[in-house]
Amino acid sequence: MSDIYRASTTAPVNIAVIKYWGKRDPKLNLPTNSSLSVTLSQNDLRTHTTASCSASYPAEDSLLLNGKPQDVSGARTQACFRQLRALRKDVEANDSNAPRLADLPLKIVSENNFPTAAGLASSAAGFAALVRAIANLYELPADPTELSRIARQGSGSACRSLFGGYVGWEQGSAADGSDSKAFEVAPASHWPNMRAVILVVSAAKKDVSSTSGMQTTVATSSLFASRASETVPRRMKEMQEAVENKDFETFAKVTMMDSNSFHATCLDTYPPIFYLNDVSRAAIKMVEHINAAAGNIIAAYTFDAGPNAVIYYLEENEKQVAGVFKTLLADKDGWSGERGAKVQGNYEAAEKANTEAEVAVGLLKDGVSRVILTGVGEGPRRTEESLINEKGEPVSVLY
Amino acid sequence: MSDIYRASTTAPVNIAVIKYWGKRDPKLNLPTNSSLSVTLSQNDLRTHTTASCSASYPAEDSLLLNGKPQDVSGARTQACFRQLRALRKDVEANDSNAPRLADLPLKIVSENNFPTAAGLASSAAGFAALVRAIANLYELPADPTELSRIARQGSGSACRSLFGGYVGWEQGSAADGSDSKAFEVAPASHWPNMRAVILVVSAAKKDVSSTSGMQTTVATSSLFASRASETVPRRMKEMQEAVENKDFETFAKVTMMDSNSFHATCLDTYPPIFYLNDVSRAAIKMVEHINAAAGNIIAAYTFDAGPNAVIYYLEENEKQVAGVFKTLLADKDGWSGERGAKVQGNYEAAEKANTEAEVAVGLLKDGVSRVILTGVGEGPRRTEESLINEKGEPVSVLY
Repeated sequence: MSDIYRASTTAPVNIAVIKYWGKRDPKLNLPTNSSLSVTLSQNDLRTHTTASCSASYPAEDSLLLNGKPQDVSGARTQACFRQLRALRKDVEANDSNAPRLADLPLKIVSENNFPTAAGLASSAAGFAALVRAIANLYELPADPTELSRIARQGSGSACRSLFGGYVGWEQGSAADGSDSKAFEVAPASHWPNMRAVILVVSAAKKDVSSTSGMQTTVATSSLFASRASETVPRRMKEMQEAVENKDFETFAKVTMMDSNSFHATCLDTYPPIFYLNDVSRAAIKMVEHINAAAGNIIAAYTFDAGPNAVIYYLEENEKQVAGVFKTLLADKDGWSGERGAKVQGNYEAAEKANTEAEVAVGLLKDGVSRVILTGVGEGPRRTEESLINEKGEPVSVLY
Repeated sequence: MSDIYRASTTAPVNIAVIKYWGKRDPKLNLPTNSSLSVTLSQNDLRTHTTASCSASYPAEDSLLLNGKPQDVSGARTQACFRQLRALRKDVEANDSNAPRLADLPLKIVSENNFPTAAGLASSAAGFAALVRAIANLYELPADPTELSRIARQGSGSACRSLFGGYVGWEQGSAADGSDSKAFEVAPASHWPNMRAVILVVSAAKKDVSSTSGMQTTVATSSLFASRASETVPRRMKEMQEAVENKDFETFAKVTMMDSNSFHATCLDTYPPIFYLNDVSRAAIKMVEHINAAAGNIIAAYTFDAGPNAVIYYLEENEKQVAGVFKTLLADKDGWSGERGAKVQGNYEAAEKANTEAEVAVGLLKDGVSRVILTGVGEGPRRTEESLINEKGEPVSVLY
């Protein structure tokens, strides 16, 4: 029987505080502006991926995600496979003892530990895990920066999930994308007390959604150009300084302004693209209420291409931020986990919100389906827990 | 007993298709960009105002609106009074037979024929009527252009209500505002078949509103500058050409894009300003649905600083636009008037919308409180119907 080679990793979700929106090269996933994100803890949200290859496998590469076969024939997945195989060929060319893996069929098995229905951008963690797992399998000498260039071609924001902590994605200017890669702004240990509460908005509340398309924004929004050329470059600097100085107030203000700027260019698209709904607006209102009650900025909202609110705060303000939501949204899923259980309810602040932000509280009670508690975390982690057994068969650690 | 001098006018509402947002001089109401509007028919929406003066009146100027005394001590109202009195003094200086009215106390009575609760910007019609009524009272030789400069200082968009049809407001560049005035792009008779259906959104659905402030946008939106300096100047030209050529498709596209651009800069304000809610988004979706069903652009949405949708269309497409709303929103107030009764229901299109835009239809049924049918109309009209009787007492024609 042929050898079965296997390697596994987990990879994190990241949520941008300076948003990626708009491609200058759609094929290579080259962005029109740089971006910056916080990598979230894999204890809370992660993709777990095992990459495997064997001469005994069917000739076609395959990918199983959450037990369901995925199409791997798309240009994006193929670009990742092709480039990782090329790097493996370099290894094999330089080491005559290295087993010949590059030409063997790949079998990949992947599991997300978070509900797909949550509408969290899972493609970033997914492509980061896929690239990292194959790099492990191939024992590539590639560093996270080099792998980020490959993962970027699978899903733009995936490049940022190759690093932990606070991560930038330099837009670059080379036509071949060689300088469009992720970099570490600061490790998680630099500012470890960053936390996030995610308000997942019920699917039923999502609708009147538009078919998206960041390229439509680039083509039709008259405001987009100044965002890409002026606003984001300025904010990238401000945000990197805020992270370096652990200046939450600036971090928060730039985060909120950049989320608003991104959604403004979506609204300025023709036809307009809407991701924020009345529940999202209620979350913004609540963050404004929490900050007003605190007398300074202790919470920051940001929204990706969907209605879910991600609210960043520092651990020391947990009771004033997550605590208010815990009391107001006590009946929602998500408070029973380890992090959720630790959050202290805040009856006094919730009472004040009930009075002063009554409409917003009502919309959130009605429209939020679950909460997720998390915080800043590390980059991809190698694991011995394999999703493919010694016989080359998929196994599950979750289901 | 002293003579009682009286003169009356009605003045129209206007709804901009290129929006005014942002002042370069808040005191003089000088805008950061030009704008363009459609004057709506006074048969449907109007302010009726009688201006009167007499030595027998109490010394203080007064204004009664819909039966309620208003404060006239504000700088904006005072600026209008002062400049109109100055023009009257010129008349008196040149004509020794002219009665000395400029120094007499003013008594002004005003009535809107539309519900204040509708959230229609009534200040434009209000200040236009106030200025026009006093100009009539004073028998000023001033033309609408000159009066528009005065009305602008009461409420910016009021300057456009001095004209009928399609009206521009030139931003101007003079520091004293002398060149910031309204002008006629085309009279109503040039393109008389322009119609509008206004979907008034229930007050209860409005909330999570922010305190507004266009000056906050100017100060904090990084996208605003390019709107004012590049986007609007280009669109002003496109829109004037569209009106001249009676090119509804361009008129509609620019109208929708400019509404979206305006609301995008509101969202890009810090803290963000939201006027569109889920019901507004449903109205946008329905217009997109109607245009898709027609195979070309026959309807255009626009939103002022509130959630109400104003939907422009041409009379020949009434059944395909207003007709769909009449069938879907049959139980709402507003269809029983002369214009509403004439609209043919459109069961086939409504059925299609029920299937293909179900969520949007549900939101509209739930969130629209009334509809208003109207169309392009004339400028202020002098009327002999006085809201002040021969004894100088207020009377009502509506209540």
